[in-house]
Amino acid sequence: MSDGFGLDHLPYGVFSVAGGPRRVGVRYGDGILDLYAATGRPEFDQPSLNAFLALGPEVWRQTRDQVRGLVEDAGLVAIEDAVLHLPVEVADYVDFYASLDHASNVGRIFRPDSEPLTPNWRHLPIGYHGRAGTVVVSGTPVTRPSGQRKAPGDDAPTYGPSRRLDIEAELGFVVGAPSELGAAVPFSGLADHVFGVTGLNDWSARDIQAWEYVPLGPFLGKSFATSISPWVTALAALDAAWVDLPEQDPEPLPYLGPGATRGLDIDVEIELNGEVVSRPPYRTMYWSPAQMLAHMTVNGASLRTGDLFASGTISGPEPDQRGSFLELSWSGKEPFTTSDGTSHSFLEDGDEVVLRYSAPGIDGGRITLGEVAGRIEPART
Amino acid sequence: MSDGFGLDHLPYGVFSVAGGPRRVGVRYGDGILDLYAATGRPEFDQPSLNAFLALGPEVWRQTRDQVRGLVEDAGLVAIEDAVLHLPVEVADYVDFYASLDHASNVGRIFRPDSEPLTPNWRHLPIGYHGRAGTVVVSGTPVTRPSGQRKAPGDDAPTYGPSRRLDIEAELGFVVGAPSELGAAVPFSGLADHVFGVTGLNDWSARDIQAWEYVPLGPFLGKSFATSISPWVTALAALDAAWVDLPEQDPEPLPYLGPGATRGLDIDVEIELNGEVVSRPPYRTMYWSPAQMLAHMTVNGASLRTGDLFASGTISGPEPDQRGSFLELSWSGKEPFTTSDGTSHSFLEDGDEVVLRYSAPGIDGGRITLGEVAGRIEPART
Repeated sequence: MSDGFGLDHLPYGVFSVAGGPRRVGVRYGDGILDLYAATGRPEFDQPSLNAFLALGPEVWRQTRDQVRGLVEDAGLVAIEDAVLHLPVEVADYVDFYASLDHASNVGRIFRPDSEPLTPNWRHLPIGYHGRAGTVVVSGTPVTRPSGQRKAPGDDAPTYGPSRRLDIEAELGFVVGAPSELGAAVPFSGLADHVFGVTGLNDWSARDIQAWEYVPLGPFLGKSFATSISPWVTALAALDAAWVDLPEQDPEPLPYLGPGATRGLDIDVEIELNGEVVSRPPYRTMYWSPAQMLAHMTVNGASLRTGDLFASGTISGPEPDQRGSFLELSWSGKEPFTTSDGTSHSFLEDGDEVVLRYSAPGIDGGRITLGEVAGRIEPART
Repeated sequence: MSDGFGLDHLPYGVFSVAGGPRRVGVRYGDGILDLYAATGRPEFDQPSLNAFLALGPEVWRQTRDQVRGLVEDAGLVAIEDAVLHLPVEVADYVDFYASLDHASNVGRIFRPDSEPLTPNWRHLPIGYHGRAGTVVVSGTPVTRPSGQRKAPGDDAPTYGPSRRLDIEAELGFVVGAPSELGAAVPFSGLADHVFGVTGLNDWSARDIQAWEYVPLGPFLGKSFATSISPWVTALAALDAAWVDLPEQDPEPLPYLGPGATRGLDIDVEIELNGEVVSRPPYRTMYWSPAQMLAHMTVNGASLRTGDLFASGTISGPEPDQRGSFLELSWSGKEPFTTSDGTSHSFLEDGDEVVLRYSAPGIDGGRITLGEVAGRIEPART
């Protein structure tokens, strides 16, 4: 059996077999339980998890109990016979910037003459909306984007393929139960609304981003693709993974705590062409998932089933814990070398990146979240 | 018959009668043609226009011809008997910043010590993603948002209701036909993908926005509500409204023109509590709809049915043509007075704003786009 996909895990996804319809399934070992075949419930005869997610936490809990009883007896679909699809029809996609180490590194690189952190950074989890329509499932090829780039020494921008294509290793949170327009969701409401987590790679074109992002934020530097895992791990499978995050100073405003700074002890690996090049630890993040949720809705913005919010790049304090090539190569000034002697700064055509995630499981072992893979295809002409 | 809703217009919306199902309808005078009842086509037996929009421009054209023949003979639903709903299930919502006068005014107000326009402004239509899930139909009350605000003299941010609640009078463009991930849509593709236009009020909390927006752009200052018209006016009804926009200097990169700078001669009125306080002219915009579309997809980002992109605040060069209260009151420093003697800077609880839009029609008269109304409700405690 595949490590990390035992009875303590049981993540949800969407699969199809031999051109058949898309259906909701649960992964167990090297197999997939066809939930519609096993239960007859109509919310599983669907091309996304959304109908199931909309039913809310009591149904999620009951279903998890039911599935635990089913997977060992029912016939499973062999994972090599299945095509895995985007598990969630993404409603709104919000990307945060919740790692102190990442934000500090980016500040030093992008704004070398200023304080690394903007004055607001320690007061609120900074975030922005990304493009929901270009969230794709792991394995989808990523076409190198073209657009306007302007290097500091250039007189004017030029059009062409991005020369500074990058990843951002992140964790995504999938909203199941919606909230009412006008009503803030308190930080204590995380498990009432969030169904689970997914790996996430927020592909980024740094040259396009650098030229466009003042004053309204990243747009085309990000909107060409965001990859997520085919498997969504329920929060219930992460009960043993909660840890206290590093101390927050200054103490945030009351809607963000105290009592909201629990994070997840998830280990991340960034693999470039088969070799691990970084190991970002999610437990070093500054802002917690509950704080991101409370902040995102403090103005009364409603949640919808299928909303996806992500942590932002996960970078730890050490150089080999950085979650982007921008940081790993210090904006290309300090290329890093893989064991075959190749030097790397940003992504080349043909490069493949796989993000892997693991966490303590509820039975004392470890679980493996769904991986996030993508290979760079050349720019279209 | 209501002015502006004749045979030359025929906008599409979603309505229900006496608790019945939502259906697609076309407005004609003071009535609504129930398109499902009139045609039996399943794409009209829907709670949004999306199924119809997805069918593409040839079907839009044929349907427009068919409807023209139907509205005068078929029985219409009286508009006072109908409830109007959000016409489109919004996929991604992008907001641009395409008015030179607006961007210049905001630059002077927010960044008084810098050049009003950022260096990129004249090279590309700056835009960002907004929250699709909080796009609401005209008439929906707007709850004053709360959040973090920090005035320049404050030591630290405070939590509370926005004190600088504002509008942005904009024009929205509704995407019907999708595009392929990885393929840019050329500026010549506007009519192949965009079905029509809607009025749009991008409600804005300036104090929340000012504190949060560096470096990743506006987030909670905008995401609490965006109102659109109940009626979507097909581009086909605006054939006589196209005009040349003001000259662009420097000439943009080839993917943005030349040949892409046609705009729409749409007059906008901003009514505050029943009195017109500004008249922004859409024909003075800098970046055109075709340029916004081409820019939004130049990196290969795909379009989906239901995508909504908006112009950004429409401000003309004259003080009485400004499209936001931020500009009309010059950030509160120069309050303006309505005829009852009331002084206005930002929005007070109970204030009602109505945006009205009109354009030259194809038969020599004028058409009236759907209005966008909203009243401010007090912050929740």
